[in-house]
Amino acid sequence: MRGANPIRVIIVGFGVVGRGVARSMLMERERMLSTGMDLRLVGIADLWGCMVDEGGLDIAELCSLDGVLARKTSIDKNMSSYDLIEKADYDILVETTPTNKDTGEPGLGHIKAALKGGKHVVTSNKGPIVLAYGELSKLAEENNVRLCYEATVGGAMPIINLAREALAGNTIISVKGIFNGTCNYILTRMVDTKLPYEHALSEAQELGYAEADPTYDVEGYDTASKLVIIANTIFGMNSKLSDVEVMGITRVTPEAIKLAGDSGYSIKLIGEVSRDGSLSVAPRMVPKNHQLNVHGTLNAALIETDLAGEITVTGKGAGSIEAASAIMGDIASIWIELYKT
Amino acid sequence: MRGANPIRVIIVGFGVVGRGVARSMLMERERMLSTGMDLRLVGIADLWGCMVDEGGLDIAELCSLDGVLARKTSIDKNMSSYDLIEKADYDILVETTPTNKDTGEPGLGHIKAALKGGKHVVTSNKGPIVLAYGELSKLAEENNVRLCYEATVGGAMPIINLAREALAGNTIISVKGIFNGTCNYILTRMVDTKLPYEHALSEAQELGYAEADPTYDVEGYDTASKLVIIANTIFGMNSKLSDVEVMGITRVTPEAIKLAGDSGYSIKLIGEVSRDGSLSVAPRMVPKNHQLNVHGTLNAALIETDLAGEITVTGKGAGSIEAASAIMGDIASIWIELYKT
Repeated sequence: MRGANPIRVIIVGFGVVGRGVARSMLMERERMLSTGMDLRLVGIADLWGCMVDEGGLDIAELCSLDGVLARKTSIDKNMSSYDLIEKADYDILVETTPTNKDTGEPGLGHIKAALKGGKHVVTSNKGPIVLAYGELSKLAEENNVRLCYEATVGGAMPIINLAREALAGNTIISVKGIFNGTCNYILTRMVDTKLPYEHALSEAQELGYAEADPTYDVEGYDTASKLVIIANTIFGMNSKLSDVEVMGITRVTPEAIKLAGDSGYSIKLIGEVSRDGSLSVAPRMVPKNHQLNVHGTLNAALIETDLAGEITVTGKGAGSIEAASAIMGDIASIWIELYKT
Repeated sequence: MRGANPIRVIIVGFGVVGRGVARSMLMERERMLSTGMDLRLVGIADLWGCMVDEGGLDIAELCSLDGVLARKTSIDKNMSSYDLIEKADYDILVETTPTNKDTGEPGLGHIKAALKGGKHVVTSNKGPIVLAYGELSKLAEENNVRLCYEATVGGAMPIINLAREALAGNTIISVKGIFNGTCNYILTRMVDTKLPYEHALSEAQELGYAEADPTYDVEGYDTASKLVIIANTIFGMNSKLSDVEVMGITRVTPEAIKLAGDSGYSIKLIGEVSRDGSLSVAPRMVPKNHQLNVHGTLNAALIETDLAGEITVTGKGAGSIEAASAIMGDIASIWIELYKT
């Protein structure tokens, strides 16, 4: 009866997403227990060190630290993330360090170490999945563990698990959609205010929807990364970022938006990947009554299948607790598949 | 290595849905085999008798019969559906007989017999799930088998598996949406043509989107049945059809539709179930740019959750191959959970 035992989780990268996962474990604890799922947070690691408690860390206390883990006297400053990943006693590594799109580190190393040690991995870190999905999925298979990454695409919008589980009876022909909340917010505000791109970008930056250096989002590279993940994981391709034709939203003008609007269309940054291997990101015209025509920071995906026809799903694309939702879903799916009795 | 063995399926009720499932098994065979899933159709039953072949029936030949199974010389007219369900050697019963909303039969008896015999069950038949979900899920649990019913709600739209699997990390607060394609088609056409309900209904009947006696759909009972299934399966309630406040679309006038339209709304038949136990079906105003504002025979569901916020999903609500999509997804999920190695 493995299901009766706690599922022991460690979180590496205790920033906004990692703390969101911890908070979610607390929020969902009672409901999950009622289904037989006993999640226990037994370790965390961030830049300042690690905390370990095999009996379970006090999440309420951890979250009250407001991220300043270093202040906590019980932190072990001499213990590295690798010490935790390689030596602690746990079942699932939740890897939530920030994405590095060039090297994938430190996430890539963390994930490899956990998989090699026979631990399941759930991550929100796009870098390792974009750069090394083939290698990582092979490592997971060899070690008979699961590698889950729903949070890397579309935040709370469950696109990966939807395609792989709920639509597992279908052949998926293409996936297209809005995968970047920053761009969608900017384009939505350009429609609302009739003002130019730069104005909407400034507003998005003030509200925290865009980074100080917005290049990665607005030039389409973030969307391209998510397409590579979809291509490699749902379609089994072996794509790289350089395989994606990318055009961002920086040259979309108020005039173009007005012209499209007058004809019943919105301009949206659409990423699309087809079974035939083509990957593209570009501003495209979407009919106003189309399911992909979602606004603000929402993401949307349209999955074209042979049996079900077109299935669309929409949800919040970003945010700490939304990423945590995807991570919690992955943890639950590992539990349902491997531990539930 | 159970995964290396074929998963043996029988289909009971070889009408449009049952034949759709058989056709889908043929369409998806190559792709499924490449993932290690070897589905084999070893028996079918309909009103005229049964066909059994432990080596696997010839699906291409079966489907070419155009449903007139009785013509086939190899049919066993003396073998009943229960003979097949109780005596054949198989893993999964696919139960696709028509819904009887008063007794649930013959589906209810079929499903009980299979569960008692330790077989997994996948069904598109709303009757047994509406009337006896508690009893059936208990039987499934006692016999350590799975009972799946994605096809009973929303056709190809994966609402049950989405809520139970992809959103398993969330507490679901409410589910509301459009769960009846007939009503949605009629309301859509009333907007397009500005003509009264009766006119749109006649058109829907001519196109096969509405039954000769449309009462079950247009008075909201079909939507209510689906709400009961969502309430009992996603929220763990113990609801009956009589617990649902139901108002259909027969009294929606062109004037009401015009008034709503002028204010930026569509009128849609919305079913809603909340965690607090309230269940209702009624025509409601939906903002035109809202994700639930889908048209024609499409279904849509909005799932309100604590972590992910609002997730919406849309898809085709009816049709032989769309129901088959849901059934194939359920079969795949049983395989992933129990047989995949």
